[in-house]
Amino acid sequence: MSERKPVSEYAQPHIQTLRAYTPGFQPKESGWIKLNTNENPYPPSPKVEEALKDAVGPSLRLYPDPTSAALREAVARINGVDSSCAFIGNGSDDILNLLTRAFSDSARFAGYTFPSYSLYPVLCGIQNSGIVEIPFGRSMVLPLEPLLDCDARILFFTSPNAPTGVGFSNDDLRTLVAGFDGIVVIDEAYADFAKETAVELLSDFDNLVITRTFSKSYSLAGMRIGYALTHPDVVEVLDKVRDSYNVGRLAQVAGLAAVADQSYLKAIVGKIKQTRDHYVQELRDLGWFVYDSQANLIFAEPKDAKGYSGPEVAQSLFEFLKSEKILVRYFAGHALTDTFLRISVGDDDQMLALSESIQKWLKNE
Amino acid sequence: MSERKPVSEYAQPHIQTLRAYTPGFQPKESGWIKLNTNENPYPPSPKVEEALKDAVGPSLRLYPDPTSAALREAVARINGVDSSCAFIGNGSDDILNLLTRAFSDSARFAGYTFPSYSLYPVLCGIQNSGIVEIPFGRSMVLPLEPLLDCDARILFFTSPNAPTGVGFSNDDLRTLVAGFDGIVVIDEAYADFAKETAVELLSDFDNLVITRTFSKSYSLAGMRIGYALTHPDVVEVLDKVRDSYNVGRLAQVAGLAAVADQSYLKAIVGKIKQTRDHYVQELRDLGWFVYDSQANLIFAEPKDAKGYSGPEVAQSLFEFLKSEKILVRYFAGHALTDTFLRISVGDDDQMLALSESIQKWLKNE
Repeated sequence: MSERKPVSEYAQPHIQTLRAYTPGFQPKESGWIKLNTNENPYPPSPKVEEALKDAVGPSLRLYPDPTSAALREAVARINGVDSSCAFIGNGSDDILNLLTRAFSDSARFAGYTFPSYSLYPVLCGIQNSGIVEIPFGRSMVLPLEPLLDCDARILFFTSPNAPTGVGFSNDDLRTLVAGFDGIVVIDEAYADFAKETAVELLSDFDNLVITRTFSKSYSLAGMRIGYALTHPDVVEVLDKVRDSYNVGRLAQVAGLAAVADQSYLKAIVGKIKQTRDHYVQELRDLGWFVYDSQANLIFAEPKDAKGYSGPEVAQSLFEFLKSEKILVRYFAGHALTDTFLRISVGDDDQMLALSESIQKWLKNE
Repeated sequence: MSERKPVSEYAQPHIQTLRAYTPGFQPKESGWIKLNTNENPYPPSPKVEEALKDAVGPSLRLYPDPTSAALREAVARINGVDSSCAFIGNGSDDILNLLTRAFSDSARFAGYTFPSYSLYPVLCGIQNSGIVEIPFGRSMVLPLEPLLDCDARILFFTSPNAPTGVGFSNDDLRTLVAGFDGIVVIDEAYADFAKETAVELLSDFDNLVITRTFSKSYSLAGMRIGYALTHPDVVEVLDKVRDSYNVGRLAQVAGLAAVADQSYLKAIVGKIKQTRDHYVQELRDLGWFVYDSQANLIFAEPKDAKGYSGPEVAQSLFEFLKSEKILVRYFAGHALTDTFLRISVGDDDQMLALSESIQKWLKNE
């Protein structure tokens, strides 16, 4: 026993040196205005609450449907694809992880842009995948050629992009999927807030995976539900590597009820888009650079009272807002992000409070 | 585009040839007596239902606590360990998967006994881990020497065993954990139905991981909650490889309420043990060989009316029960299991129906 090594050294070497993903700060006490994790400011559909309350009962003793068959059918139906093309995950993060695990390793590189969803490099780190990072330019135009030329066999592409909110046209995405020698994952976490979705491309390509989440537009971040739409052969691969009961009974119930209430979805998504567009304008009126957003978030480059922008300015506002109990997200360490703040679109009260705090900050500067 | 290969060929080669885990059959229509997946025949605590109904509401729009901190504390407390030693998973299957992923690969072998939980080889297949399978003998005595001598760096050991229900002493387990050069996972899915738990060993060994589930004793298979108790260094490794929001809000709520109602747990576990012991005796009175069970399942070797046992006999009863809408589990293909049926312990009505069907089968033979 005495000669046994420290227990963490039994882990694979790349796991030992790994750093865990840092999710946005989740305060435990109330009183915070949370505009840092792109949650929906509105509650889920009342029909979801009803369905959940009905489902709470003795049947929780039973395992869930292992394939989430009814929910696969429902998400396929609203997207106009066959149910054999749908897959359900414990959040779309679960699906991104399964894709990384099935399709990448040290020889099969995974590619993604910078900036994009900061989870991809973490998933590649866990898998010990080779990685290719393709930088956007400041314009955030789709870097089509470097993506097509890169050595990756699986590509993760957030569309609309996070953290910028910038959207992409299906014409460009079609060129990407058609020309890429491997799997293209279009991560559509924010697609319900966008002008277009890439779903229409599914009928033309077997190497396209579209991932979606119930965490943003459906207001169900707490339930952990995501889905993928893709070729049945990819669904088959995902079914091999997933946990056999990856989605619980109540999550399946919530997902079904949420999908069934499309008018509620439209109403809250419409409201969020309105708030977003209004607020983008408000920040631009301050003279700030703000990307056009097709998501429920705003990526804005603050200017201080003297008209300066930069990492210090962005950080100063971030800290000031925190002192006002308003949480937004700041991404340090890269010129494309470190002069910006990412602000999730809240409800009117939250956005008003944010505006007032920004005014206060401008006066204090 | 035309020269692109079939899409599943982009997957890693070992994934392409993988076969998915087959969970026990989950009938979609009602009317079945389900004694095939070791679910609890009794509903979860009324306090769990209450807590869940209270938690269904606007807060589902928010992400869950990423670390499930309150539930870590609760499971640590009932087991008398520090909360830094606890980890929560989306079912204990999630944790077994994370352990496989962190601690095994083609060079770091995973070991397990035969028979044991049939998920381990599947998880190793996904990970492409080297494997060592140590067979039990018919006596099902702990094969201590081969386990200690094997080349694995992580060992999965189901205690009490599934599918046999056989329990093991902490004296033997202590010798195993003390002498093993690697991580020993004691999978205590059924420990609440057993005479002993290995928790007392945790204070002596940093290479011990105990996994538990809410799916059996707590009647919450539908909620997907499991936990691990282990050294904080192992918790740290698991935190690196898990999904950042692996356990949803309602699962955390259900787990907390279930743990808080220990008197309900004791009552239903007591009832199940009573039914189990009664039924083991009943089957032995038929002249069948039945292992002593410390789980909520019975592993019994049926004899037909002429006194014969064997794979055909076990299969014949399995099929007959199915025709009577009673589901049990049959494990073909190995001499240690293929003459047996695994019967989950149901409530009195279910067990009576099973008895009557067995009598019918004996008369039909």
